[in-house]
Amino acid sequence: MREVGIVGIGHTKFGKSAVPFLDMACDAALQAMDDAGAKTGRKNVIDQVFIGTMAAGMVQRISGLASAVVDTLNLRPAMAETIENGPASGASAVKLGYMAIASGVCDCVLVVGAEGMRAVTGWEGTDFVATMLHPEAEYKYGITLPSFAGLFTRLCMDKYGVTSRDLSIVSVKNHANACLNPNAHIKAVVKLERITDERIINATNPLVADPLRQYDMCPVSDGAAAVLLVAKDKQEELGFGHKKFVKIAGVGSATDTHVVANREVPTDLLAVRLSAQMAYKMAGVGPEDIDVAELHDAFQILEIAESEEVGLFPRGTGHLAAREGKTEIHGEMPINTSGGLKAKGHPLGATGVSQIVELVKQLRGEAGERQVPGAKTALAINFGGFGNNVAATILTTK
Amino acid sequence: MREVGIVGIGHTKFGKSAVPFLDMACDAALQAMDDAGAKTGRKNVIDQVFIGTMAAGMVQRISGLASAVVDTLNLRPAMAETIENGPASGASAVKLGYMAIASGVCDCVLVVGAEGMRAVTGWEGTDFVATMLHPEAEYKYGITLPSFAGLFTRLCMDKYGVTSRDLSIVSVKNHANACLNPNAHIKAVVKLERITDERIINATNPLVADPLRQYDMCPVSDGAAAVLLVAKDKQEELGFGHKKFVKIAGVGSATDTHVVANREVPTDLLAVRLSAQMAYKMAGVGPEDIDVAELHDAFQILEIAESEEVGLFPRGTGHLAAREGKTEIHGEMPINTSGGLKAKGHPLGATGVSQIVELVKQLRGEAGERQVPGAKTALAINFGGFGNNVAATILTTK
Repeated sequence: MREVGIVGIGHTKFGKSAVPFLDMACDAALQAMDDAGAKTGRKNVIDQVFIGTMAAGMVQRISGLASAVVDTLNLRPAMAETIENGPASGASAVKLGYMAIASGVCDCVLVVGAEGMRAVTGWEGTDFVATMLHPEAEYKYGITLPSFAGLFTRLCMDKYGVTSRDLSIVSVKNHANACLNPNAHIKAVVKLERITDERIINATNPLVADPLRQYDMCPVSDGAAAVLLVAKDKQEELGFGHKKFVKIAGVGSATDTHVVANREVPTDLLAVRLSAQMAYKMAGVGPEDIDVAELHDAFQILEIAESEEVGLFPRGTGHLAAREGKTEIHGEMPINTSGGLKAKGHPLGATGVSQIVELVKQLRGEAGERQVPGAKTALAINFGGFGNNVAATILTTK
Repeated sequence: MREVGIVGIGHTKFGKSAVPFLDMACDAALQAMDDAGAKTGRKNVIDQVFIGTMAAGMVQRISGLASAVVDTLNLRPAMAETIENGPASGASAVKLGYMAIASGVCDCVLVVGAEGMRAVTGWEGTDFVATMLHPEAEYKYGITLPSFAGLFTRLCMDKYGVTSRDLSIVSVKNHANACLNPNAHIKAVVKLERITDERIINATNPLVADPLRQYDMCPVSDGAAAVLLVAKDKQEELGFGHKKFVKIAGVGSATDTHVVANREVPTDLLAVRLSAQMAYKMAGVGPEDIDVAELHDAFQILEIAESEEVGLFPRGTGHLAAREGKTEIHGEMPINTSGGLKAKGHPLGATGVSQIVELVKQLRGEAGERQVPGAKTALAINFGGFGNNVAATILTTK
């Protein structure tokens, strides 16, 4: 298969965007193009633009976002499509970028993930996110993402002995990492002793969905991230020869039952496992080869459960690994060096691309204080719905 | 490049859907699978599902439609993404299906186009469609698709001598074709003598955007269409060996200025021309090889203008060709044998896939009373925005 890699990355500051949605998406895209330093100029090098976004239409009343980005950045007549797969829209767009180049139709693809979520608040915000649930069996009855996460967390507590303190350990690690990331939404030094099981039960951290409280959830963020993909055999010719080529070694995605209640084992995240297996197989690597991972911690339990499903830790031991500090930047298996969704923020469609941007930085050795020494192979898991559509990506510089 | 073709087609009756949106999409998908007659059953043959839809989120409050279809049809763990490119979402999804197989990542891809538009009416319906226009320079000021079509029609009248009667000739032809299509939204025998320039100026056909009146527009339809794509080298192994293989010989797409007012020559549809050129080049054919075409006649002038841009007739003569009957089923260059958007209906995201379904029928010789004798090579143009993002597809059985 044709070798495809990343030669440019871009990332806005996550949080509340100071500029309109379209400008924010274009900002990330321009950064990725500048980072790649296309000597041939911006026009006519990029064959295709994919934008990953869940709710540009629903929230921003903008459809055809991909066309708008192409025109604003003067990339005409590049091909352009918008890709939607809920919170996994970003990784899906990267996967399609890979396919577009591997197919031979394109040589260079710009992938942008973008979401503007802070335009809506409260009930309305929870509602548009919940449209990713099953339209007949779930959404109609008012079930939300946090309610699924609460149920899932409780099941893992009962089955594996995960504690509220373990959840807080994940939060503390990710907030510490985010303090080292200039693009993170929330920079707060959170000390574990201040958020013991007793401490969190108070009015400033209200219960959302038992056992989860407000600060167990990722924040609501605006944000955009972008990557420039190129065929290895065209890297030189297109003017990207000076950039370190971070190879997309594997892409995988998989679906699980859309109706969460239909799953045989409700603590399993089958689509995480299958998407990772597909990506491992394509890349010819296994969990033992992964030096750093970005996992989809919209809720802390997901980081723990995903770390098991992708084989980084045996089943039921992810929380023990977190307790032992194994998932810290200088632990044996660093996870979410970026700060993760919990602290870096989670602009739905941007997240999957943001994860790739962090991993490219790690593999280039450009992660600064967050650098995992000698990282060569990396894994990202981007989680759509409540695990009903998951995308895995493996990058390598080996 | 790996050879990719179509072995299954499905199409719902366009109009007002009697079943919920998700069921409608699944209906088309099931028809395509049944048509392909996969002997190996429905599970595990399909690697990827792409759904082309513009407004499942905005209108139906369903995001992650692709995941919902996969689960409903028991296709798990197939990969699934939703593709959005306004009214060209369908052809974009087919293009990505082509890429997914050509890349070697997939062997078999199900592509569904679906839109439920009749859930909203009046101003709200016009508004969600208008979100495809430029968010800052057009949408905010209340401009709509019909208003662009009115301006464009007037310019073509002034420049090329197109008359209202010419527009009606396109309508009459497409309504006649639709009467032969069981899946068409509108079946009405429209006689030219009853819609002369004088006749149309009356209260039952009110002015919408000068010079266009209500019956110059396509109707607002619900509908879904589906195609099953397979790699030629896997057709036998996957159990589709008995089906006639309709090859996707060329795919192309292109963007034009998102802001229509920025176009150098406002009567040019540059993205139509460029997307067709790309598809012709990939297919190794030219306009002279096309036996039958489906063009995007959301407004009659578009059928005329597109027929020129893709090279079927010299510039400024498309309306003359229509006058002379050349574009009728038994004319020298049949266009919109299905009834076109004007009469078959135009459920936005479904249209691009619906066009492909019609052309597959023509190339298989299964078009019944609409059959173009001996058709071997076919072209579809699916038009997004007001021509700011267009996709072309060329099919052949040669």
